[in-house]
Amino acid sequence: MSQRSIVVDTTRSPHAILRPIPISEVKLRDRFWQPRLIDLQEITLPTQYEIMEETGRIDNFRYASGKIKSSQGLRFLAPDSDVYKWVEAAAWSLAVNPNPKVSKLMNAVVEEIVAAQDEDGYIHTFFTFDRKKERWTNLRDMHELYCAGHLFQAAVAHHRVTGEDKLLKATTRFADLIDRVFGWGKKEESDGHPEIEMALVELYRETGERRYLELAKFFLDVRGQGRIGGSHYIQDHKPFRELEEITGHAVRALYLNAGASDLYAETGDKTLISALEKMWRNLTGRRIYVTGGCGSRYEGEAFGRDYELPNERAYAETCAAIANILWQWRMFLLIGEARFFDSLERSLFNGALSGIGLDGKSYFYVNPLADRGHHRRQPYFECACCPPNIARLLPMVPSFLYAVSDNGFFVNLYAESTASLSFKGVPVTFVQRTNYPWDGEIELQVQPEKTVNFALNLRVPSWCPKATVKVNSQTIDAEPGTFVTVQRDWKRSDLVHLSLEMPSEFVVCHPFVEPNGGRIAIQRGPIVYCLEQVDNTEADVWCVAARTERPLTAFPKVIANLPVIAIQGEGFGVELRHWEKDLYRPLRAVRQNIRPILFVAIPYFAWANRDAGPMTVWLTRG
Amino acid sequence: MSQRSIVVDTTRSPHAILRPIPISEVKLRDRFWQPRLIDLQEITLPTQYEIMEETGRIDNFRYASGKIKSSQGLRFLAPDSDVYKWVEAAAWSLAVNPNPKVSKLMNAVVEEIVAAQDEDGYIHTFFTFDRKKERWTNLRDMHELYCAGHLFQAAVAHHRVTGEDKLLKATTRFADLIDRVFGWGKKEESDGHPEIEMALVELYRETGERRYLELAKFFLDVRGQGRIGGSHYIQDHKPFRELEEITGHAVRALYLNAGASDLYAETGDKTLISALEKMWRNLTGRRIYVTGGCGSRYEGEAFGRDYELPNERAYAETCAAIANILWQWRMFLLIGEARFFDSLERSLFNGALSGIGLDGKSYFYVNPLADRGHHRRQPYFECACCPPNIARLLPMVPSFLYAVSDNGFFVNLYAESTASLSFKGVPVTFVQRTNYPWDGEIELQVQPEKTVNFALNLRVPSWCPKATVKVNSQTIDAEPGTFVTVQRDWKRSDLVHLSLEMPSEFVVCHPFVEPNGGRIAIQRGPIVYCLEQVDNTEADVWCVAARTERPLTAFPKVIANLPVIAIQGEGFGVELRHWEKDLYRPLRAVRQNIRPILFVAIPYFAWANRDAGPMTVWLTRG
Repeated sequence: MSQRSIVVDTTRSPHAILRPIPISEVKLRDRFWQPRLIDLQEITLPTQYEIMEETGRIDNFRYASGKIKSSQGLRFLAPDSDVYKWVEAAAWSLAVNPNPKVSKLMNAVVEEIVAAQDEDGYIHTFFTFDRKKERWTNLRDMHELYCAGHLFQAAVAHHRVTGEDKLLKATTRFADLIDRVFGWGKKEESDGHPEIEMALVELYRETGERRYLELAKFFLDVRGQGRIGGSHYIQDHKPFRELEEITGHAVRALYLNAGASDLYAETGDKTLISALEKMWRNLTGRRIYVTGGCGSRYEGEAFGRDYELPNERAYAETCAAIANILWQWRMFLLIGEARFFDSLERSLFNGALSGIGLDGKSYFYVNPLADRGHHRRQPYFECACCPPNIARLLPMVPSFLYAVSDNGFFVNLYAESTASLSFKGVPVTFVQRTNYPWDGEIELQVQPEKTVNFALNLRVPSWCPKATVKVNSQTIDAEPGTFVTVQRDWKRSDLVHLSLEMPSEFVVCHPFVEPNGGRIAIQRGPIVYCLEQVDNTEADVWCVAARTERPLTAFPKVIANLPVIAIQGEGFGVELRHWEKDLYRPLRAVRQNIRPILFVAIPYFAWANRDAGPMTVWLTRG
Repeated sequence: MSQRSIVVDTTRSPHAILRPIPISEVKLRDRFWQPRLIDLQEITLPTQYEIMEETGRIDNFRYASGKIKSSQGLRFLAPDSDVYKWVEAAAWSLAVNPNPKVSKLMNAVVEEIVAAQDEDGYIHTFFTFDRKKERWTNLRDMHELYCAGHLFQAAVAHHRVTGEDKLLKATTRFADLIDRVFGWGKKEESDGHPEIEMALVELYRETGERRYLELAKFFLDVRGQGRIGGSHYIQDHKPFRELEEITGHAVRALYLNAGASDLYAETGDKTLISALEKMWRNLTGRRIYVTGGCGSRYEGEAFGRDYELPNERAYAETCAAIANILWQWRMFLLIGEARFFDSLERSLFNGALSGIGLDGKSYFYVNPLADRGHHRRQPYFECACCPPNIARLLPMVPSFLYAVSDNGFFVNLYAESTASLSFKGVPVTFVQRTNYPWDGEIELQVQPEKTVNFALNLRVPSWCPKATVKVNSQTIDAEPGTFVTVQRDWKRSDLVHLSLEMPSEFVVCHPFVEPNGGRIAIQRGPIVYCLEQVDNTEADVWCVAARTERPLTAFPKVIANLPVIAIQGEGFGVELRHWEKDLYRPLRAVRQNIRPILFVAIPYFAWANRDAGPMTVWLTRG
């Protein structure tokens, strides 16, 4: 394995404060992520591969290379990108756990991709043979550059993890073609679906070829002038630097922001970071779900207006939560502030993770915050962006644990693990002992090979009401929502103990979020909870009013073989038998129909893995 | 004026229990409807006419008749139908109040319509000249039969009110053409937008031509077999008689139901009424707003799933509330039960009336139940269905006051008025003295020309907690949600006093309507209230929690020159200053930030007539 399995490589980026660590250097031993990463290779990647074969997605490449005469998978939607994301997922997963079967499968797919490349470098299975002449004619809708972006990301991941350059070489030939076709004075357009921007910056980082960086900048700058239709939906309504609100298709908006963040890392262009900060405030202050889900409208899979966050009709596409993680990770690397990781953590443990079933092979495209039992997990989707996207996100998680600055280390995320890092040439091993996210006690053994001075920045999440840090026997103040910095000479026997209070808490929502008026959600640590009917026999979970003056009690529970911490609370159940006929009744007629009950809440990410039934994140208050 | 200004003429319909009275026989003197009806002729119809001229809608007919060479108004959407609805509105208004200016304008428009008729009887301004060959080629989208339906309704109204047959004759020529083109063994399709069904039944009633009834039946029967695309959106997914839920585009669904109700009145086909009753229960029990608004989704202007009733993103098109009134009126005529009028009344006083501004010339297309101040009234719309629809609804109101059965009279709606009716040849005058809907005391003088025995059925609305009926000095039990029947010999001096308790009340919603969980609305009589910011300076109205254990106090108030009854209540205001940045906060951090306030609620129909600002119908509970 290469030592460079870095997701978003800001190692040499002049305007990023932080540098990620290679995935391969973190060995997880936890019960939260590590089982998922094993399932990823044992279940998720193999089943996704099978479905890609069944649906003709791999055959599309065989068709393009002339190996077969037809394929059932050819569509103007972007099936190629599903394959690329799968390759990227497989590659990162191999940085976590070597696995000959996955490796072999990945390399076979890579062969098919490379064989499908046209003589001029072009790769996109739909625009082959008769359709060659249609290349680059409908950038708004046809996802050509979007697919190219996912190919570049796959190639970068493949190269960083395996050290092999076959896919990377093919990719740079394609990127060179795109560079010949697009640019000022050439074709002055961009893709309807952003993605290629961040991919080109990573390709620049991997190859050192500055033209790719310039091309990424071009694709950002050419946007917002109506050249691809001018709609909010595809972020073409306004030049990027003038954006103040995050609007339109949620995945597109967040991918574009991720790309712009990457550009800032290389260029330091202040007009970019200024627009990104405005959109960040707009997103986190007004347009994101408590689950970290993004995009409130079915129409256009889009962000709504400020505070427009319906629960049952939430769109909150899995890909959009992932896109938020990708963007927040980049913002965090640029600026190094805890608020970005707080947002990343919210999406990671809730709105993104809900997108994959506990069986590792069923998915949500849409992640509502309330449901009557209609919404079921699916093995795949016609537009299958989400399954391989969650597959590529999971193996990135180990890299989120730490980051490195000029002064030392940032510990961002906690999990039972060992990380082999280094500071100014001195190997430093970090051993975390914790049951995070179920418990807030974290013991961190700092083991430098020799005594070395550096700053250790420990994240105190904003959800934490009170935290203490002890270094050996010394106690240090810790403010939630910040990094606590401990700068000292670190010795081999040093022990850091971070104690994050993790009560089960009621959370309220900004009063302008109309459907959540007067309601509460339940959160414990980074985990947002929901009530699912299967755990609650005393009342329909939509008819439970929580008694917020009573304590919530955390207790261990197993959901579809997964041990979790569930929460019990006290509330009132509204009797439904008087609601057979009427939709509206005078209060005088229903006042008496409530009775005290106990309710059970489970982690939102774990819902819809057992019997179908009503679910809700937000509860009324009794 | 003709004596036959009857809206939905079931006078000879064998399967309708009730017969409407002519509009012209009710003389309103009330302060609620009569000022609206004066404004209708003085402001609404003239301004709508001007805009129809400005936008080329009248020119389209001049163009079709060859009087002018081009028109800016030609569109595949249905601008002709706006003109027809305006004619219908003008005609019914003339049955209420003779008005030479309106009469002259109406007749001028009728001339333009008639002149635009093609030699074969066809009328639709878009499909003239070069586009003739496209007639009837895209029934799903092009609104040809929909426009024809509105033409027929206009012609029937024009004939019933004026006694002139010019428009009716042109119309029957067109209907005959449609009858030659469509039918079993001929063109076996229907229109994407239902409307012609109820129009054809009325045309049958007006002309006695049975082919029109058969054609209406054909258009209903041909639906639901996928012949026009098969989508829910246009109610083509299932044969009408198999429908159990009200789905798809709300106006289309409700117009179709109105047409099916008309067909039942003539045919007594039990499979029709069975489907209609199922959809009625689905609508009133699961899919209608407390305002009587219909259609909860922007996508497809459609009904949502059961209990899917978002407030801020309510669609609730004005036309859909009107369509519900048209359907409920028909169901009421068929069956004579109070529940239909209860639903009609809810839509009439709230979700339909909100569609027109108090200035009589500004409109809502969409009627949300919560808003941050973005939603403003407009003088017209590109798709202008709603303004002329509300214009034709208003003059129908007088006809809603009474209905006649074989046994006597139904008094459905109360308003200061005199009605000159008759029973078995004996003239009977009813004089109502009341300030309804602001007050529940109704004095009804029954003045038969000579003593006559009949049943007087007095509606006790379902919103009423307690009612008493006194006939002269005799008190009679009255159950809310029913008609109280008083059968006796009526003499000239008889006095009925109906006393409907009309408290200001809190209303709760079925717990399955997720955004209304734990919330309350305010209703007084048939009027649903809302909080508008302009009346509430103590707190943002979205941040008011009502104290439901405290009394509500009704008081008189003037809104944009309209005297109304407003309601004051006690509540808590949530402080917003702690909500500058965060979207979600732990309950522990916000618990203290509420303070007691008084709030003022105004009738929902009157909102958005003053300074723009937040509005909400549903309040949290303090």
